[in-house]
Amino acid sequence: MDRFDVAVIGTGPAGLEAAITAKVRNKSVLLLGSTKGSDKVLAGHEIKNYLGLPNISGVSLQESFASHLVACGLSVTEDRVNLILDMGGYFAIQGHKESYEATCVILATGVSAAKIFPGEKEFLGRGVSYCATCDAAFYRGKQAIVVGFSKEDESEAVFLSEVAAKVTYVALYECTLKSRDGFEVLSGVEPVSIEQEGLGMVFKCHDRDLVADGIFVLRESMEPERLVPGLDIADGAVVVDRQMCTNIPGLFAAGDITGAPFQYIKAAGEGNVAALSAVKYMWGLKEEKNV
Amino acid sequence: MDRFDVAVIGTGPAGLEAAITAKVRNKSVLLLGSTKGSDKVLAGHEIKNYLGLPNISGVSLQESFASHLVACGLSVTEDRVNLILDMGGYFAIQGHKESYEATCVILATGVSAAKIFPGEKEFLGRGVSYCATCDAAFYRGKQAIVVGFSKEDESEAVFLSEVAAKVTYVALYECTLKSRDGFEVLSGVEPVSIEQEGLGMVFKCHDRDLVADGIFVLRESMEPERLVPGLDIADGAVVVDRQMCTNIPGLFAAGDITGAPFQYIKAAGEGNVAALSAVKYMWGLKEEKNV
Repeated sequence: MDRFDVAVIGTGPAGLEAAITAKVRNKSVLLLGSTKGSDKVLAGHEIKNYLGLPNISGVSLQESFASHLVACGLSVTEDRVNLILDMGGYFAIQGHKESYEATCVILATGVSAAKIFPGEKEFLGRGVSYCATCDAAFYRGKQAIVVGFSKEDESEAVFLSEVAAKVTYVALYECTLKSRDGFEVLSGVEPVSIEQEGLGMVFKCHDRDLVADGIFVLRESMEPERLVPGLDIADGAVVVDRQMCTNIPGLFAAGDITGAPFQYIKAAGEGNVAALSAVKYMWGLKEEKNV
Repeated sequence: MDRFDVAVIGTGPAGLEAAITAKVRNKSVLLLGSTKGSDKVLAGHEIKNYLGLPNISGVSLQESFASHLVACGLSVTEDRVNLILDMGGYFAIQGHKESYEATCVILATGVSAAKIFPGEKEFLGRGVSYCATCDAAFYRGKQAIVVGFSKEDESEAVFLSEVAAKVTYVALYECTLKSRDGFEVLSGVEPVSIEQEGLGMVFKCHDRDLVADGIFVLRESMEPERLVPGLDIADGAVVVDRQMCTNIPGLFAAGDITGAPFQYIKAAGEGNVAALSAVKYMWGLKEEKNV
């Protein structure tokens, strides 16, 4: 497996700036996230304080970001990350599609505004999972519920259905997928909570209860403490110093994930600092080897 | 005297972003610095990692910044700041041209690459001064040496010559000013050090010694510890937390002045955070009053 110098997780302003700065410093960069960029940027009606781009719409700002990536020869590897493990000297990154390795990791996954279902955290790893492709093997011949938030989630549910006996796909968006044998599509369902009953899991909704062996919630991004075991968190944010170092050597964080203010240019500035800290960290590793 | 909500000192990326964000948040803003912007920005040949503006020249980046100021209805008050005093609840700001008041101050004066003359720090306030207009009154009938670094410094030297018996203007740039009675212009001089001899000051140069009652060094920006008495400094940088707060309540700092990395987008990001912290600080003052 190729080991990248720097893996950047997240394609908002923090992640993009981090990737660009690391690339400018001649590092090999893996940029993981969504090619469409950041939903938060795209949703911006008129952004007044991104210095140098006055009164710009979110869509235009995203276009400027995308053209910057192209100008740098960078591209986004479309994947979501399920787990990052410190292997001592490098990191193993488990994506929904593939696994990756990198010497440094920059976490820039933002802060999700999505509400967690009651019970979701409690049963995570014990009947609730965030990655259908990662855990598909455990569902051979079993029944699963998959909760999807956008069209991108459909392929993961379909993949699971090839292994599982039955998949119930709960689409929390306008979905055009059709039900077929072993694959039931439900739309317009209002989720209430996740509960355990006997050996099975129950996805309680306003008008019905769905029962299965396990429930997959395909969230855009995971909480950082789930993503990186051992990561220091305070007040819901990753703890960093002014150089964007976390408590784990070689792991840096930038953008909304490090706390307020949630602003585009603050995020970009932090991405820049995180990348330069990663470069410095790698320089230190090299020096150690030479001693 | 008008008291501004926020005074921003410095017109590099940190200062401009701070001013724009404070303005967007409906604060009255005094932006002190140079209308031409930042020399460091202008000197940039090709800037590769200012996210959203790929491979831009320093001149074009400065133009983008300037147009952003215009779009926000902001303008630069052309002045250099000599001293900032915490008056308890507000700050008094002594400029070379005028004095100002503000509830909050954001320091974004950058880091000067200019070498300090040996003896300059030692005799500061005791024969060496950084502001000719501030101290002119002490030089009535006396002799002064004024060291200028750019054309902008000339008016200050000329002003001093109207009060002093004699001004020797040492121009460390290509200067077209002509000597006249009581105003001697020296170019091509190589300074060595500043010393004291008897009651007078000596500006030692390679080929001559200049003697006067005092020496004015018209530096672009002052060292932060001189600018703000009582400000915490470590390793040559203003000490700030992640919210860009200094040890003085109501005083914030952003950009190169807070330490490395010296990068445009890092500076802009910090300016954004500093401005939002200032807004929050003022909200706190208002709450206190309402209690």
